[in-house]
Formats: sequence, C-alpha cells, structure tokens
Amino acid sequence: MKVDIITIGDEILIGQTVDTNSAWMGAELNKVGISIRQITSISDNSTAIIESIENSLPNTDLIFITGGLGPTKDDITKHVLTNYFRDELVMYPDICEEIENYFVSANRPFLEVNRQQAMLPKKAKIIRNELGTASGMWFETMGKGVISMPGVPYEMKGLMAKIIPEILEKYDIDPFYHQTILLQGIPESVLADQIKDIEDALKKDEISIAYLPSTGIIKIRLTATETKADLIKDYLNQIAERFPGEHFGFGAQTLQAVIGEMLLADNKTLGTVESCTGGAIAQRIVSTPGSSAYYKGSIVAYAYETKEKMVDVNHDELWNHGAVSQQVVEQMAKGGLEKLNVDYCISTSGIAGPDGGTDEKPVGTVWVAIASKDRVISKRFQFRQNRERNIESTVVYSLNYLRRMMAGLT
Amino acid sequence: MKVDIITIGDEILIGQTVDTNSAWMGAELNKVGISIRQITSISDNSTAIIESIENSLPNTDLIFITGGLGPTKDDITKHVLTNYFRDELVMYPDICEEIENYFVSANRPFLEVNRQQAMLPKKAKIIRNELGTASGMWFETMGKGVISMPGVPYEMKGLMAKIIPEILEKYDIDPFYHQTILLQGIPESVLADQIKDIEDALKKDEISIAYLPSTGIIKIRLTATETKADLIKDYLNQIAERFPGEHFGFGAQTLQAVIGEMLLADNKTLGTVESCTGGAIAQRIVSTPGSSAYYKGSIVAYAYETKEKMVDVNHDELWNHGAVSQQVVEQMAKGGLEKLNVDYCISTSGIAGPDGGTDEKPVGTVWVAIASKDRVISKRFQFRQNRERNIESTVVYSLNYLRRMMAGLT
Repeated sequence: MKVDIITIGDEILIGQTVDTNSAWMGAELNKVGISIRQITSISDNSTAIIESIENSLPNTDLIFITGGLGPTKDDITKHVLTNYFRDELVMYPDICEEIENYFVSANRPFLEVNRQQAMLPKKAKIIRNELGTASGMWFETMGKGVISMPGVPYEMKGLMAKIIPEILEKYDIDPFYHQTILLQGIPESVLADQIKDIEDALKKDEISIAYLPSTGIIKIRLTATETKADLIKDYLNQIAERFPGEHFGFGAQTLQAVIGEMLLADNKTLGTVESCTGGAIAQRIVSTPGSSAYYKGSIVAYAYETKEKMVDVNHDELWNHGAVSQQVVEQMAKGGLEKLNVDYCISTSGIAGPDGGTDEKPVGTVWVAIASKDRVISKRFQFRQNRERNIESTVVYSLNYLRRMMAGLT
Repeated sequence: MKVDIITIGDEILIGQTVDTNSAWMGAELNKVGISIRQITSISDNSTAIIESIENSLPNTDLIFITGGLGPTKDDITKHVLTNYFRDELVMYPDICEEIENYFVSANRPFLEVNRQQAMLPKKAKIIRNELGTASGMWFETMGKGVISMPGVPYEMKGLMAKIIPEILEKYDIDPFYHQTILLQGIPESVLADQIKDIEDALKKDEISIAYLPSTGIIKIRLTATETKADLIKDYLNQIAERFPGEHFGFGAQTLQAVIGEMLLADNKTLGTVESCTGGAIAQRIVSTPGSSAYYKGSIVAYAYETKEKMVDVNHDELWNHGAVSQQVVEQMAKGGLEKLNVDYCISTSGIAGPDGGTDEKPVGTVWVAIASKDRVISKRFQFRQNRERNIESTVVYSLNYLRRMMAGLT
C-alpha cells in the first residue's frame, strides 16, 4: 500500500513554518506498516492543489492532505476538493452546534465565518474534530482515498487517531518492522567499511539498511517485513558486539539517558566543569527528566580566573600550559569532583572557534577529562572549524567517554 | 522566477528526520526575491528521483536537490543525476586531495569510499564543499538548472552561501528589500493590536508585514521593493520607539550579542547561577564569539546541596521556602556575583516539568533574579507545561530582563 502526503500552506514554502506534520504522520503510518511514497508541500492555490492530487493519485492508494481548512479567506482547500470531487457543500446542523458550543465555552464570539465551517461536502465521509472547528473529510474516487485534515498539529493528530484504525480495517496491510542501533565516535565511512560483510548478508535477507549520521553519532536503521524482526535484532546485536566502545543504545535511547541509567544503577552522582562547552553538557544531561537524582550541577569555568577560583586550578600551570591543556583539564575534573561532591566529574577545555586558534592548538582542539574517586583519564580531540559543531562534538564525545569509563572500556 | 526543492531520503518519509532544510532554503531564497513553487520529499530510489525531476522541470527554472550524497551504498543521487543528464563521472584530483587532507587532518583513515567522492560529473559545474566531502553539482538542461547538495544542514548552508550570489548574477531577479525588528516578551496578538495603525499605513505603502514568532520572541519582517528601503527603516523605528522594553534589536542580532555589546561598552562582566535552566543561559551567552571578554562563567546549581555549597544559599531558607522562591533565587544571584567576581549575575530557579509541580507552584513557575553591585531585582514568571519551552522561555526572558536592567528600564 502506497500513501502520499500533501501539505498545503504558503507559510511552509517561505520557510516560516517547518513542516513537522509530515514527519509525524510518516512515523505513525510506518509503525502500522504503511509507507509514504512522497511528501509534497504546495501553496494555498487551487491549481497547485489540483495538480498535486492529479500527480499523486495514479501512484498511490491514499492521499493525506493537511492545511488550508481555517475560517479565513486564504484557506481554500475545502472548496477546491469539494469541486474537484463533484461533491457539494451542505450544512451539518449537529456539527454547527458543536462548533457553536466550542466558541461559547471559550467565551469567544461565534461568527458567520465560524458557522461556515459546518458547511461540509455531502458525499464525503466527515471525520469529527473535537479539538478544533475544521472537520476532516474523506473523499473516495476510483477506489482511492483522499483525506483532508487541518494543519494545526494537535488537531491533525487527533483526527489521525481516528483515521488509522479505519485504514487498517479497510486495507490489507503487510506490517513492517524496523529497529535502530546507535553508535558514537565512528565515521560513517569507517563503519560502512567494517560492516561490509553484514551489509552483504542483509541484502541476501532482503533487509534494507540506512545510515543516519548526526554530529558525532551514527544511527543504523534496518527495515524489513515483520517476520524478520528477530533476524534484524540478531544483526543489530552483531554490530553492537563489533563496536563495544561506540555502541551505546538502540532505538530512541539517548547517550545522556543511558548514562543516567548507569549512574542510577550504580548509585553514583555526576558533575561537570565546562569551559569550551559553556554549559552544553549540563544542558544535555538535565534534558533527561529525573536527572536531578544523579546530576548535582556544573561549574561553567569560562574565564581563567573562574577556573582558579571555582575549581582550584593551579595558577602557574594555567599560565604555563594554557587553559587548553591536559594538566588544566585534569585539574578541572579533580576540582569539580571535590567541589561538587560527586562520584564522576567530566571537564572540557578547548578552542571552539572561530577565533583563538594557534599553530600548536588550532581551532577545534579540545581536551576532555573525567575524574572518579580512583583515577583521572583525559584525551585530546581535534575537531574542525565550526564553533557550533565543535561544541556539539565535545558534548557527545565526552558523554560517551564517561560511558566507556563506567563500562570499564577505557 | 520559480524554484522547486526536492529533498531525498528515506529517513524523511518514515518521519525519522524532520525536513528542516526546505524551510531554511525557502526562507533564504525568499529574502533575495525567489519564491518556492513546491517542495517534494522522496525516497533514495532512482525512479522516484527521476520522476520528481521530470515532474518539476516543466514548471520551474531551477531545482534544488538535497540529500543522498553520502559515501555509503544507500546514497545514489550522484549516480542517478549523472546518468539522467547524460554526464559521466570522472576523477577530480584537486578535490580528491582536499578530501584526503580533510581526513588526514582529522586523524581519520582515508578509504576508497571517500576517494570515490571525488568522482564527479564531468560537464556539471562542481561547487566545492569545504565543510564536508560531498561536493555540490549544478547540472544544466534546456535552460534550466538542477543543483544537487548534501543533506547535512550545515554543509548545505555552506554551499547555498556560494550558490545564491551566482543565481542572482545569472537570473534576472527583482530584488526585495526586507528588514526585521526583534521584540521579546509581548504576545503576538497584543502586538498586532497595538500596531494596527502602522499595519494600515504599511498596506497603503505596499509594504508587506509578517509576524515570525518563536518562544518568547517575535520578529516582524517588512518586505517591499528595494526603493522602499528607507521607508521600511522608518516604520521599524516607529515600532522600536513604541516598545522600548521589548525591542532589543534588528535583523540578525541576538539578545545575547546585544547584551555582550552593552557589557563591553560599559566594561562590565557577567556570570550566571542556573538551576532549572541547567546551563542553557550559559550556553546561549557563549554562543556569541568573543563572549570570553565579558562572561566569566556559570554555576549550574542543580541540587539543593550544590546551591548551598557553591553559592552560599542559606540552608534554612532553602528548606523553608523551597528552591523555587524569591528568597533563594536572590541569594543565588548575590552568591554568584561574589563567587564569580562579576558585575552582573543572573540566577534562575523554577519547575521546568514535566514533574515537580504543586498547587502553589505549578509546572512552569520560574523565579529569575539579577544582582548588580548596587541592587538585586527579581521576578516570578508563569510559563506552561512543556519542559523544553519552559527552559527556552526562561533563557530569553532572563536575558531581556538583564538588558532592561542595564538600560535603566527596570
């Protein structure tokens, strides 16, 4: 079964709104075994709407349309679709009453433009929208379905919750399965080279593979029919075993959540002393709800003076070796361990850029240290030119460095 | 001039990645007077790529394609386009050397798959990518252009910075002028109501207005032909004068950069003591290059213990009033002022959610204080239910609170 999504709205084309509806629908439909063939975003324009439908219809069984159902003049989807499918708008009195109640209960005036939203196509199936005033409309043409929904994300989601079960009942869908493995600190090309044999085996088993890289992290996603779920898990475990240092999780896990679980399991606490990351590691850690159970805080020691004053970095060493040095980053981690009274402390010091680089320490040079009660480990990284990416790289490399230390891998 | 965008990648169709590239490109192209007709997202599949190009070509002058240029087997865009445009892949030795240097300087192995990225179409114009290994490719066919770029957002953005000026030179585009004014802490509907008269005047002058809201901040963008540049500036100054507390900048300025300039001009320093924001304010401040000249650091005092130990919050007050209280947040600011040895210190303490709310202090309750040598000001905010938004709101409200204090507005 093939499905297309069409999102309607000038605000998407001028980049004012990022189309998150499509991604959400894509993910939800995939879960039940429905693949999206194509997503098209077009303007609030009659010709564009009709052309995109005519372009999609021959290639799909079902089209989901979002957007253009508001009460204002620039929203034309309902009229265009009703004309196109040779339907006619009629008043649905019960829906009109619902909309009126909606306005009355919100203490807002019920205007003629709002009443017009109960004028809906006669032959199409109307899907009630309890979260707003624009109803869903399910047109049928030549055995194919065209479903129009409002573009407001939570209203669309409410309607989809009603629509998906109906689709599963109506169509014969072969569900598929996919699972993702997460790795940190291995370049995509190196990874691909080192799992060539697995890729070949996957191909024979008709399991598709996708590499999804983001800064410092690669996700590998395997997809096949549901009958191959166990096989997919086997393959992912093979990859996991091959990269114990890099592999940190599966599916929707995050590095910070994995570390949180390890700390909780060991009953240990964590602190951070950040220079070049400027609070980014702290922020990543506290993005996990419940992190206050193991995370005590951070000292963002941005200035030399703050490094000395807050975490007792030795004045002479700081001025002799510079803030971006093994000596200083290790002192920062040890100082933080004591000052924050924690079991593990991560510290960072580096030149994020764009300025501040030297021949010896170019932009992208970053030292990371981790102190525990027993020992201090540290490592120099050489990232690149982009400030934002250097900070993000430092965050994920240092979190995985901690994971490896706790797991006895370094 | 009409332009289409095609984004290629299975990860978009299954909803694993939200297509933010299209929105960014739409916004950038609009700025220079180029409208997007349609955005299409398709899978990494040869037929889909060719069909989408053939569907777009008759309706557009230029097609931007992103994605599918990685070194791995699932990335097929380069091969499909080269075949489709009857071009052939040849080795570009200088690009090969650049890619090799890129790997060598990062201490990463240079593999055959990486070398293959220097195999590029012979007739197409190659656009060098200094931020990654996949080059841009500009094909020409029947007077129309098809430009292929990698899907990694910052690489795509780097290439677009080179491509846009070439487009403006090659095509006859009627340039727009637009300028943006930035306001913090005023709801969109209130703002719209208070500048109704200006909106009417703009309409008469054929200047279009767009409200671009993000968390806690609204940008108003005025757009017209270039002859109206001075008129646009006048209108924006009128808005600025009407909202001295809310207006903090124009165009690409940021709240953190504006504050940085004020601190530098006054030769003052800044520190932060963060609880609920968990380092997010620090991170925002250090995102401005050169911030080390005025920003000394942050104490992320996430745990009660850390608040007492690191910034001398009084034990009894902490336990009597709770961490989210005026007493504690003011002590945090004063403590930070002293400990970090700075002229201004921002402190935050709140319930970001999803858990931890009470009847008296529901999720979204946030206290912010700012201490200077002379005085301490503090304010209670009531945000909403979403953790991420509550943190972001606290960041922008507290930065503007500091700006207002420094400007003598509070």
